Amino acid sequence: MKLGDLTTPALVVDVAGLEHNLAAMAEALPGARLRPHVKATKCTALARRQAQLGHRGFCCATIREMEGLAAAGLGEDLLLANEVVDARRLGRLDARVTVAVDSPETIEAAAAGGVREVLVDVNVGLPRCGCAPEQAGRLAALGRRRGLSVRGVMGYEGHAMAIAGRAERKRACDASMALLAAAHAQVGGELVSAGGTGTYDLNEQASEIQAGSYSLMDTAYARLGLPFRLALFVWSTVISVSEGFAVADCGLKSLGMDHGNPSIDGAKVWFCSDEHVTFAAQRRPRVGDRIRVWPAHVDPTVAYHERLHLADGDAVVDCWAIDLRGW
Amino acid sequence: MKLGDLTTPALVVDVAGLEHNLAAMAEALPGARLRPHVKATKCTALARRQAQLGHRGFCCATIREMEGLAAAGLGEDLLLANEVVDARRLGRLDARVTVAVDSPETIEAAAAGGVREVLVDVNVGLPRCGCAPEQAGRLAALGRRRGLSVRGVMGYEGHAMAIAGRAERKRACDASMALLAAAHAQVGGELVSAGGTGTYDLNEQASEIQAGSYSLMDTAYARLGLPFRLALFVWSTVISVSEGFAVADCGLKSLGMDHGNPSIDGAKVWFCSDEHVTFAAQRRPRVGDRIRVWPAHVDPTVAYHERLHLADGDAVVDCWAIDLRGW
Repeated sequence: MKLGDLTTPALVVDVAGLEHNLAAMAEALPGARLRPHVKATKCTALARRQAQLGHRGFCCATIREMEGLAAAGLGEDLLLANEVVDARRLGRLDARVTVAVDSPETIEAAAAGGVREVLVDVNVGLPRCGCAPEQAGRLAALGRRRGLSVRGVMGYEGHAMAIAGRAERKRACDASMALLAAAHAQVGGELVSAGGTGTYDLNEQASEIQAGSYSLMDTAYARLGLPFRLALFVWSTVISVSEGFAVADCGLKSLGMDHGNPSIDGAKVWFCSDEHVTFAAQRRPRVGDRIRVWPAHVDPTVAYHERLHLADGDAVVDCWAIDLRGW
Repeated sequence: MKLGDLTTPALVVDVAGLEHNLAAMAEALPGARLRPHVKATKCTALARRQAQLGHRGFCCATIREMEGLAAAGLGEDLLLANEVVDARRLGRLDARVTVAVDSPETIEAAAAGGVREVLVDVNVGLPRCGCAPEQAGRLAALGRRRGLSVRGVMGYEGHAMAIAGRAERKRACDASMALLAAAHAQVGGELVSAGGTGTYDLNEQASEIQAGSYSLMDTAYARLGLPFRLALFVWSTVISVSEGFAVADCGLKSLGMDHGNPSIDGAKVWFCSDEHVTFAAQRRPRVGDRIRVWPAHVDPTVAYHERLHLADGDAVVDCWAIDLRGW
């Protein structure tokens, strides 16, 4: 099958780019130094490829992702890096399950739900989940009293992730990790889980890095000058051409828009509608032309699609289900 | 089942609000005066309810939506209000199928694909699909020579849809409809299809209005002072509470973000992450509280969800599949 045979819009990954990205990361962070975050990709087939390369522990953002990986036989060491107030579905999994906790309520939920291992989630500067660093020791003690095994701490320096300058990104990351180290000193345990694609080689304090976007990439991360290639695009058909602009058949329902418009090579994107992208191209396209549309944010883009096509040049060589969607 | 029993995040519609909206529209635009656009809702069960209220023709943005409505027995008069370069799946449908055309290529695609009826799509001011108004007559003649029945014209005044002032919105709509009327004079046929939720009662020239969002609504449309109630929310759980802010478990993968952040009653939303919304509430919430999160844009929000729960107060009274997703 050729790319031209696909129904559009279609989510496509360039296999050479994907394999380059997977290999580059496996070299930089071998084995358990990387805990791939599956929220960016939501695809057990891709996770299996990461496991083959030596990363056998995974990171999830939803219970559905945890269930899917466990069902696929990838449950050797699954971390739900997020808080839940009902952990019963986690407690039933045939997998090693660890869940983040940041409050007495989430500790109680983990214990009541039959989860045995937790990480204390620490706020390291991003106003989201995580306890204040000085509360981490108290929560760890509470968890242990409740019979839980506390494996260590996690803390996501998300506010540092997209800082353009490498030195400044490193400083923000270091400041966050100093907070996490202080919390870890109170909590104990072998794990200090943190990081992401933007800090994968800057974060020297974490015992494991939670990166996911690196495998597919997007135009926002591409601006950071990382050694990962833009490998994911939405394959689209030009359906209308007017004086000064043209329209292709992908839009708000095939592209995550929180990071802004997607990009098209040799063109300026004007705006997206539900099923349209309007753009001005340097060379006037023709109705029926196929184009690559590069998403600005990988995670919410992938979550709109049922499947990921693998392309080797113009040949479609495989198709993977995006099977970890929903909750 | 109660709302409190739902796994979160969950897409929920308030039945009283939905029925109010459906009834108000059916009174304003009875029967074939409204051609409900299913792109906003992607739900055959909701479309069936609209058909019961007298709107038996539907408007779609994708071939998948057309196929789903036809398979559900709602194919009395289906309009694909969008261009396609391969119409073979449309030609195979057991339904009355009309497709928009705006170029020789899309006319050829319709004819070659076995579609028998078309509308000439006219650009009435929104830079998207549609031919220049002065080309409409030539395209209609081309379509008829190719053996197609040309039912009339369509033109979407999308650039007028969100203008806050009603008088200004009316002026923009009128200017667009003057262009469409001129095109219609060249094209002929019984249909002048246009409009949307923002102009449903201002557009006096169209023979039928293509509105969809009115049934569920969103915070963007709510600002226009229309007689439709905000009926759609993402039901979410507070999973973390810190000094000055809290976090609930819905985010970029359960909310369309192109119109900006969602809203939470009595709170200011700071930002969304993949599976989180961070907000500052007037009254400090507790971990485990359930909250309503109101989307800014209905269409790309609905497209993230597998199902729509129907709530009567706190009781969940039904669940409809969002079965028209994908392409």
